[in-house]
Amino acid sequence: MRIAIDAMGGDHAPRATVEGALTAAREWNDVELVLVGHSEKLEPLLKDKPANLSVHHAEDVILADDEPVKAVRRKKDASMVVAGTLVKQKQADAMISAGNTGALMATGLLVVGRIRGIERPALAPMIPTMDGTGVLALDLGANMDSSATNLLQYAIMGSVYRSKVHGLAKPRVGLLNVGTEEMKGNELTKAAYPLLAEAPIHFVGNVEARDVLNGNCDVLVCDGFVGNILLKSLEGAAGAIFSAIKEEFTRSFTTKLAAAVLKPGLTQFKKKLDYTEHGGAPLLGIDGLVLKSHGSSDANAIKNAVRQARMALQNDLVASISSEISSGK
Amino acid sequence: MRIAIDAMGGDHAPRATVEGALTAAREWNDVELVLVGHSEKLEPLLKDKPANLSVHHAEDVILADDEPVKAVRRKKDASMVVAGTLVKQKQADAMISAGNTGALMATGLLVVGRIRGIERPALAPMIPTMDGTGVLALDLGANMDSSATNLLQYAIMGSVYRSKVHGLAKPRVGLLNVGTEEMKGNELTKAAYPLLAEAPIHFVGNVEARDVLNGNCDVLVCDGFVGNILLKSLEGAAGAIFSAIKEEFTRSFTTKLAAAVLKPGLTQFKKKLDYTEHGGAPLLGIDGLVLKSHGSSDANAIKNAVRQARMALQNDLVASISSEISSGK
Repeated sequence: MRIAIDAMGGDHAPRATVEGALTAAREWNDVELVLVGHSEKLEPLLKDKPANLSVHHAEDVILADDEPVKAVRRKKDASMVVAGTLVKQKQADAMISAGNTGALMATGLLVVGRIRGIERPALAPMIPTMDGTGVLALDLGANMDSSATNLLQYAIMGSVYRSKVHGLAKPRVGLLNVGTEEMKGNELTKAAYPLLAEAPIHFVGNVEARDVLNGNCDVLVCDGFVGNILLKSLEGAAGAIFSAIKEEFTRSFTTKLAAAVLKPGLTQFKKKLDYTEHGGAPLLGIDGLVLKSHGSSDANAIKNAVRQARMALQNDLVASISSEISSGK
Repeated sequence: MRIAIDAMGGDHAPRATVEGALTAAREWNDVELVLVGHSEKLEPLLKDKPANLSVHHAEDVILADDEPVKAVRRKKDASMVVAGTLVKQKQADAMISAGNTGALMATGLLVVGRIRGIERPALAPMIPTMDGTGVLALDLGANMDSSATNLLQYAIMGSVYRSKVHGLAKPRVGLLNVGTEEMKGNELTKAAYPLLAEAPIHFVGNVEARDVLNGNCDVLVCDGFVGNILLKSLEGAAGAIFSAIKEEFTRSFTTKLAAAVLKPGLTQFKKKLDYTEHGGAPLLGIDGLVLKSHGSSDANAIKNAVRQARMALQNDLVASISSEISSGK
C-alpha cells in the first residue's frame, strides 16, 4: 500500500512530517510512503532514507489562511493538491495532511472525488470521552447544512469506520439531539431518526450533548454546524476549567504544595480529554482515503496517522463504505 | 405591581414557593404577591401572612412529566394555567413558575399570548461565565427551528432585557457561530448576520462556542436546538470534569489532605459555573412577564425570581420590547 503525506502541511512541517514518515517507514515495511513537498526542503532532512520512503516534488504549498476552495483550484502544484492527485490517479491509496482543514476537504471533494452515491463527505474526528475511548463524531465541519439523508450516510460511514478501523463488532450509533425521546428535536433530527432506525446499523437512539463525554455511543451523528458547537463547547469548558484550577493551585504557598500532590493524576486525566491525543480525522465518503492530522501534529502524531491509514487500507475501508452505501439504495 | 406565583410548580413546592413568597412579601412592600395553588395545601403553611400576600385557589396541577401543550389545554384549573390567566386578564403583571418548562412555554404562548409583532417567544436563561457575570442566551429551548427574523427578534429582546433588567448601558450582542468571520456559518446564521448588523443593537459579530465562557458578549443569539446543544455541552463537560477531580482528590490519604487545602477555592469556582445560581429565565416575547425558575428552586431562588420580576416590571420590560419590535418594522 502507498500512502502520500503532505510534507508541507501543519505547524511543524516539514520537520515533523519527515521525522514521522521516517519512523513509520522503518516500523512498517508493508507500507510505501511518499513525502509530497518541495524536494529542496525535504532532501536535507532525509539523510538516511529507508527504501520504502520516497519524495515526490511539489513546487507550491497551501497556507493556513488561504481561502480553501480558491487555493485548491489555483494552486495545482501545492503539496496537498499533488498528494490528492496521486490518490485520484491511483498512484497512492491514501493521503495524510496536517495542513489547512478546509483546503483538505476541498482537495478530497474536488481533486479525489466522492464515492458514488455519497451526497456529502463528512469529517469525522474522535471526541474524547471520560473513559478514554472516545466517540467518532460526524460531520464536524465539512457541511454546515445537512439533510436527513446526509445524516443517514454519516451514520453508515461512521459505523463502517469504527468496525473496520477500530475493530468494534457492533458500533453503537447515536443521533445528537436535545432529548432522548424519539419525537424530540428539530425538523432535521426528527426526519433523520426513522431513517437511522431502519438503517443496517446498531442505532441506539438520540444522545444528549451532556452525555457525550460519558461515551454511551461509538458513533455520534450530527450536522457540521451543530457538531462544531458541541466540540468547541466541550473544548472551551475543559480549557476554562483547567485554567481556573491552575490559578487556584498557584494562589499561595500552601495551595502550591497541595497541588504538587494532585498534579500527576490531574495531568493524566487532562491528557485523556485532549482531542489531539485521539489521532487524525478521516474525511469519509471520498473515493480514496483522506486523513486529516492535527495542525499541531508532531512526528509521533504523523506516525500514528500512518498507522491509522494502514489499518483502514488493510481493512478495505473505502470499498466497504461504498458497498454499504450502494446496498442501502 | 402584582406577581402571581405558581405555588405548586417545582421539586420543592409548595414549601419552597410559599417560604420564598413570604420572604419576598416582607422585603418588598411595593409588591403584591398571589400564590396560585390548592388553598388547602397552602393555607397551613401560611400561619403569619403579610398583607401583601394572598392565595388564589387552583384545583389542579401540571406535573413534571405531563405532555406540555396537552396539559395546558386540558387542565384549565392547574395552578400554572390559572397564574397565566391572571396575567392575561391583567389581574397580575407577571407570573413565576418553577414547574414543567414546556408547559410554562405553552402557557405563555396559548394562555397569555405573544406581543404583537413577535413571531416566536424565546426562553432566555443566563449561561454562567468564568468571571461570574453570565451571558443571556436565547433561544434556549422554546423553538427548535428558527428563521433569521426570529434570531433578529431574539437579539432585540435580549438586548432590551439586559438593559432594562440588568442595567447594562450598551449590551454586546453576539451571534453563536462556527467562526468569527462574517461569512461563516450555516444558512441560518449567514442570513441572520446582516439583519443583526443593521438592527438597533450593539452587535459584536459572531461568537464561537469555545469563547462563550469567556463572557465576550452580554446576549448570545442562537436557535433553540443549537442553544440546547451549547448549554448541555458546557454543563456536561463541567459536571464530568468536576466529578473526575473529586475522584482524583479522594484517591488516597495524601490526596485527601491536599484536596482539603484546595477545596474552598474550587467550591467557590464551581458555584460560579452553576447555572442554578443565575436566577430565573424570562420567556421573552410574551405579552406579560413570564419567568421560569429552576425546577430545583428553593425558597431563596423563588425570592430572587420575585426580585427579578420586580426589576423587570419597574423598568417596563414588556412595553419596551413591544416598542422596540414595532419600531423596527
